[in-house]
This record gives sequence, C-alpha cells and structure tokens, in this order.
Amino acid sequence: MKQETEGRRVVVIGAGFAGLQLIKELKGAGCEITLIDQRNHHLFQPLLYQVATTLLATSDVAWPIRRLFARRKDVTTLLATVTGVDKETRQVLLQDGGRVPYDILVIATGARHAYFGHDEWAEHAPGLKTLEDATTIRRRLLLAFERAEMSRDPAERAAYLTFAVIGAGPTGVELVGIIAELAHRVLPEEFRQIDTRDARILLIEAGPRILGAFSPELSAYAAEALEEKGGVEVLTGKPVTDISAEGIRLGEDFIATRTVIWAAGVQASPAAEWLGAEADRAGRVMVTPELTVPDQPEIFVLGDTAHVECEGQMVPGVAPAAKQQGNYAARVIRARLTGRKLPGPFRFRSMGNLATIGRNAAVIEYGKLRMRGWPAWWAWGIAHIYFLIGTRSRLAVALSWVWSFMTGQNSARLITQGEKPRVR
Amino acid sequence: MKQETEGRRVVVIGAGFAGLQLIKELKGAGCEITLIDQRNHHLFQPLLYQVATTLLATSDVAWPIRRLFARRKDVTTLLATVTGVDKETRQVLLQDGGRVPYDILVIATGARHAYFGHDEWAEHAPGLKTLEDATTIRRRLLLAFERAEMSRDPAERAAYLTFAVIGAGPTGVELVGIIAELAHRVLPEEFRQIDTRDARILLIEAGPRILGAFSPELSAYAAEALEEKGGVEVLTGKPVTDISAEGIRLGEDFIATRTVIWAAGVQASPAAEWLGAEADRAGRVMVTPELTVPDQPEIFVLGDTAHVECEGQMVPGVAPAAKQQGNYAARVIRARLTGRKLPGPFRFRSMGNLATIGRNAAVIEYGKLRMRGWPAWWAWGIAHIYFLIGTRSRLAVALSWVWSFMTGQNSARLITQGEKPRVR
Repeated sequence: MKQETEGRRVVVIGAGFAGLQLIKELKGAGCEITLIDQRNHHLFQPLLYQVATTLLATSDVAWPIRRLFARRKDVTTLLATVTGVDKETRQVLLQDGGRVPYDILVIATGARHAYFGHDEWAEHAPGLKTLEDATTIRRRLLLAFERAEMSRDPAERAAYLTFAVIGAGPTGVELVGIIAELAHRVLPEEFRQIDTRDARILLIEAGPRILGAFSPELSAYAAEALEEKGGVEVLTGKPVTDISAEGIRLGEDFIATRTVIWAAGVQASPAAEWLGAEADRAGRVMVTPELTVPDQPEIFVLGDTAHVECEGQMVPGVAPAAKQQGNYAARVIRARLTGRKLPGPFRFRSMGNLATIGRNAAVIEYGKLRMRGWPAWWAWGIAHIYFLIGTRSRLAVALSWVWSFMTGQNSARLITQGEKPRVR
Repeated sequence: MKQETEGRRVVVIGAGFAGLQLIKELKGAGCEITLIDQRNHHLFQPLLYQVATTLLATSDVAWPIRRLFARRKDVTTLLATVTGVDKETRQVLLQDGGRVPYDILVIATGARHAYFGHDEWAEHAPGLKTLEDATTIRRRLLLAFERAEMSRDPAERAAYLTFAVIGAGPTGVELVGIIAELAHRVLPEEFRQIDTRDARILLIEAGPRILGAFSPELSAYAAEALEEKGGVEVLTGKPVTDISAEGIRLGEDFIATRTVIWAAGVQASPAAEWLGAEADRAGRVMVTPELTVPDQPEIFVLGDTAHVECEGQMVPGVAPAAKQQGNYAARVIRARLTGRKLPGPFRFRSMGNLATIGRNAAVIEYGKLRMRGWPAWWAWGIAHIYFLIGTRSRLAVALSWVWSFMTGQNSARLITQGEKPRVR
C-alpha cells in the first residue's frame, strides 16, 4: 500500500477556484490528496458583492469544502491555518504544530485587499474578500442609513448619507451600482426623517477611467449609465491620499463620509514568504511557464497567488484564469506520474471581461464582441447562475434575483455580527 | 394637526410577535406610532434552531422591520437601544441621549436565556435567542467536528464528539434532533479520521421528563424516538451543577464535552427595572388582566416580558400568546381612543404545543387532539411555512426543507463570525 502512493502525495493549500479545479481534474489519477484551507467553505467571490449589498444570503455563495469531495476517498480535507513550508523535508507547517508531508505541493491561497502601505485605512475602509468582509460592509451600509435617520445634525446626516467606493474595477462598479439601487429603489419609502435618494454615492478611481480593463467605449458607457441612471458620482484621476473616521481626502479635497469601501488594491497571500521565492510588487510568486517555482518543480503556485505571464501579458486575477491554471497543473501532474509527454507552457484563454452596472445593465467584452445594457445583464446573470455549484444554489440565487427584480425588495437586509458579539 | 394626535402617541418597544401584531391591529386607528428596537430585523424565533443547526440561512428567518411598515405612514421605526422610562414626563430614554415622548407605552422586549445565577456558564454554553447566537452555535457545532478530525488524542477527540444540550423543552428537543441528523446523516461520508456517527449527543433535563408541557404519553414517545431513531441519550432528573471549558458536571458525574448549548432558563428583559414595577422570579412584569402595569394604565407589557395569568394559569412564553396579547392591547387602545366599551380581561386561547424531534417525526397536542410521527411533522412544517412573513421567505424555507429532505444535505453549513472578526 505504501509504495503505491509514493510520490503521489499531493497537498493543495487553498480551496478557491484554482485548487478545486485541480482536485477535480486529478480524479482517478491515483493521488493521495490533502486539501488545506483556513475556512470550511469555498467562496464564489464573483457574487460576494451581492452579499455585501443585501441581495444574496451568505450561504448562497459558499459551500462546505468537505461536501464537495465527500465521495472522493482520495481527498482528505483539513480545516487548518498554514504557517510555512519546509522545502527540505517537504512538509507543510500548520499553526497547531502539525506537519503535512507532500511530494507535490500546490499553493493557491488567493489574495487579500491591500492599502498601498496605509494599513491604518483598513479600519475605516473594509475590503471585500471573505464572507465576514461582506457582512461587515452590509452592516455598515445599513447602519449608515439608520444613523442618518436618527441624526439631528445636518452635517452629520449628510456624512452618513455619503458612500464612497475606492477603486473602479468590476467590484467597485458593481458595488456602487447596488448601493445606488438601495438608496433609490429599495429604501426610500421606509424612512421618515431622511430621503434616502439624497444619498451621495461616489465611485473614486485614481486612473483616468473606470473599468480600465475594458475598451474605452464600454468604460464610457458604464460611467454614463452609473451617473445618469444610477445617480452615482464618478470621480476619475483622483488618488485617495487619506482615509479617516471622518472621511476621505483626495489631494486638496476632503469629502465627509462615514462609509468607505475599499475595492482598489490586492496583495497576494504570503506564499512567497513561505517559499523564500521571488515575488512581484503585489506579493505574487514569479512562476515558470509550467506554473512551478523556479528550481522547485514539485511546487506549483496558482491563481491570484501567482504572477503568470502569457504572451508577454500578465494573466489577470479572475476566476476563469484560476480554473485554467488548476486544469493545467493537474495535466502536468498526471503527465509526470504516468511518464507521458508534458503539456507545453501554460496558455491563458481569456473568457472576456464582464461587470454589472446596477439593475438591468452590464458590459461584456469577449474578443471583438461587445455587449452592453440589458442583454449583457441577462447574459451576465445566466453565466453566473451556470457557474454556481449545485442545483440548490442555482435555485436559491435565481429566487433572490427574480424576487428582487419583480418586487424591488432585497432579501438579506440584516445587520448582524456587531462590533462586539455578546456571546463568544 | 397637533390636536389630532394628542393622546395618540403610541411608543412600542420591541419588534417581536407581540409588538408587530399590536401595530398591525392599530392600522387606521389614527395613532402616531413609534417602534423602537435595538436590531433592524424581526426574528422568527420558532425556526431559529434551524439556523443554529445549518438547515436555514439567517435571512430566511429575519425581516427588516422598516420594510414591514414601509407603507404605514403612521409608523416610524427607530433602531435604538432603550435604557429606561421616565414615567413622570412620559418619555422613553435612549442610549444616545434621545427621548421619545409617549401617551401610551407598549413594552414587548422579550427575554434572554438565564443561567440561574451562574453567568459564568454563558461563555461555555451559549443560548439561542438572536441571529448572532444562532451563528455562534452553528460555528461551535461545526468546529467541534473539525477539531475532532484534527485531534490525535482519543480523549480529546471523544470530548469534541460529545454534544450536550441543557434543557428539554421544545427548543432543546429540536436542537438535539438536528444535531443527531448532522452526525448520522449529513456528515459521515465527509470525514476521514473520525466516524461522525460515534458522536455522543446528550439531552439533559433537570425535571422528570422531556417536553414537560406535553402529556406524559407524547413526552415518552418523543424520548423513545430520540433515543431509538436518533441516537440521542436522554438524561432526565439531572440538574447541571457546573459547566466549564472541559465539560459539564451533573452532581457526581462529569461529562467531558466541548460543545454545550443552553436551552434551559430564560430571564425577561429589564422592563421591570425601567418601570420600577413588581416582577416574578424570571423578571417578568406582573400585569393587570388588562395587560397594563398596576396604576399605570397607559403602560402595557406584553409577551415574554409580562407575567400574565389566565384562569389561574400562567400564559406560556410562546408566539401565539404574544400575538394574542398584541391583538388584545390594540383592542383596548382603540376602545379607549374612541370611548367605546373596553374588552373584558385578556384570555389566552391555547394553540396547542408542538415540537419536532428530528427528521420525519414531531409531536402535536391541541386540546384532546394528539398527533405524532410523520403526520405531525408535516403538519408542523406546513404551519410554520404559513406563519412566516411574505412569499419570498416561504419559498426560500420550503426550498431548504425540500432540498434537505430529498438530498440529505443542509444548505447553511458555514463557519463564520470568528471570535475576533478581522476587520471591524
């Protein structure tokens, strides 16, 4: 028995898109796979912004990792925090003191938001990477309206009714889109002292235009749609210079706001430190065209944790790229184990760019194909339902969307997880 | 305008079953109603145990209070914490320093769990009254299995696989029922080091039998169903004498466990202190047959906060009783405002007792009617779907139940809200 699995112990750190895809593709390869994650759930990050903005429930976008591989007897799942890698003895080090030996190591631990050296901003401007982040943002959004309603000071009220999203990539655009919906469509008739339509919703971008990865044409369309239909103020070319409890500073200008959301920078997880490997400025490990660490062919680094170049361009940190990398690494591992011919270097096939801009509008770019408006919105919705895991989630998400579309009511408008939980 | 609302300012504290029902029944009565709650949502407590045990999502059992009365222009909702009542000036005092004047005050602030003078137990044995309580219990349940899987020490592993629920009223019985399902039906194939079916699930009751409010016959049936079908150990006549991080003590016996849930005692909210009114041992305000504070006819106390007697018996702390009291108080208020004849003293009409005991079994008692087994389970389910608020929740809860019933999979198996949230 021992001999059979020799050289076949695959340890995967991180149950994101890359890690899950790799394990799926290793089915029947005769590996002994250990999947380690510090959370018990896989998170469908592309819809996390809808949890943060009251459209979806947390359980709609997250699945217990154990469940996904319950029937794969070759997969063992560990809920544990990794603290390092011992490359000499080929072991992963866990926080509880445990060690997990590997023959092949796959690191796909993703990224966190980063504040460009201003970690003190984190407190005032939460980012959106985990379920806890989403419920934190949801709580702050809803509490801001509540506090505006209770406030008797016009300046304070205005600050509570000002919402700033920093960073105008797809996540930033999608967040302001739904915040605008909340203020203009969902909440107005519920408040007595304030008119939630007075809310000032700002999308702030340091670069010259929003959705920089899209064509200038679609990016201009999105800005116009947000401003004219959504009631969002789009500020481009405005790098944030300070964030405090009172508001944000954009160079000379100060904007009083109590609700700031960070959608600007990301920083890869500390895999490069674990490995002592070369990394780019955002902490991503520089990998070979085979997605391994130079001189460590037994260590793969995938997804947002890796700096991968393909035809001179950096592969973007999106779900399809992570999945393709998981696929590719599985093929390399299979080829090595069977002694068959190795695949060529990793090639990224772009699945296009897409982003929603509020209700009934989206932008999609796929090669020369460009879509916008409601057809893009429907295409976006169908694609996302398709990529969810399992029939149950598809039904639940579809129910939430159809309900919101028909009634104008969002179903997850809960303020929970206070600053100090009363019971541990 | 001022004159019209004179004497008609009704302040309601607490958006539970009693408060909501009262406001519903005051529709069109010409009152100026202010509803104050420290949370933004009404909670459907009868199903909260299903959130704690991974069957339902938090948003399935909670609704934003503002939404419920969005179209009632006579209702203003405040998210605020009440710290007292000034009976002289007739004002409710808020934590932020605000004061809300009333002509009629309705206090329906419910109850919390109580530890019979052992508040130090709270840390080790969370109770189940809020959404945060439910996610805390869910996290602890799921983490216990995870830690058992990671443990290399057999005694520690056994302690992690021992679950104790203290108190065998309907909540305690319903909790152990689903915990047993988790261990026996949902989780087994997902773990590699442990067999979750080895879990020891204890229902501990100080009194002589479980479900003390039911007939001895149904109570015996429930105990048998839990033990034989569910794999639950039922311990009656065993008062808990200590709870610590290591386990629980029942007189001479010590049981090592890392997961204890408190479903035993409740303590009314501090309304009696606010009012300087007479209260029973559990802190419930002793009210007149008109549900008002003696000598303060303008102050009503309803639901779990009130000690109400009816035909010599104390009215139980259940949702139908709270609703009936809300109805009754609204009738009294209307009669007073219009000068019409006051209704007689409050009378409680029992809607029966019901409790589920795991999958496909329940007990129902309504007067002489007694039901048990699967017919009772279906009746229970239909009744609860019926009492949920809104079509959307009914669809979502029905989807979760049907899904779980058909696939054996629960949809809200998330470990969230860690002890220290990373971002405030």
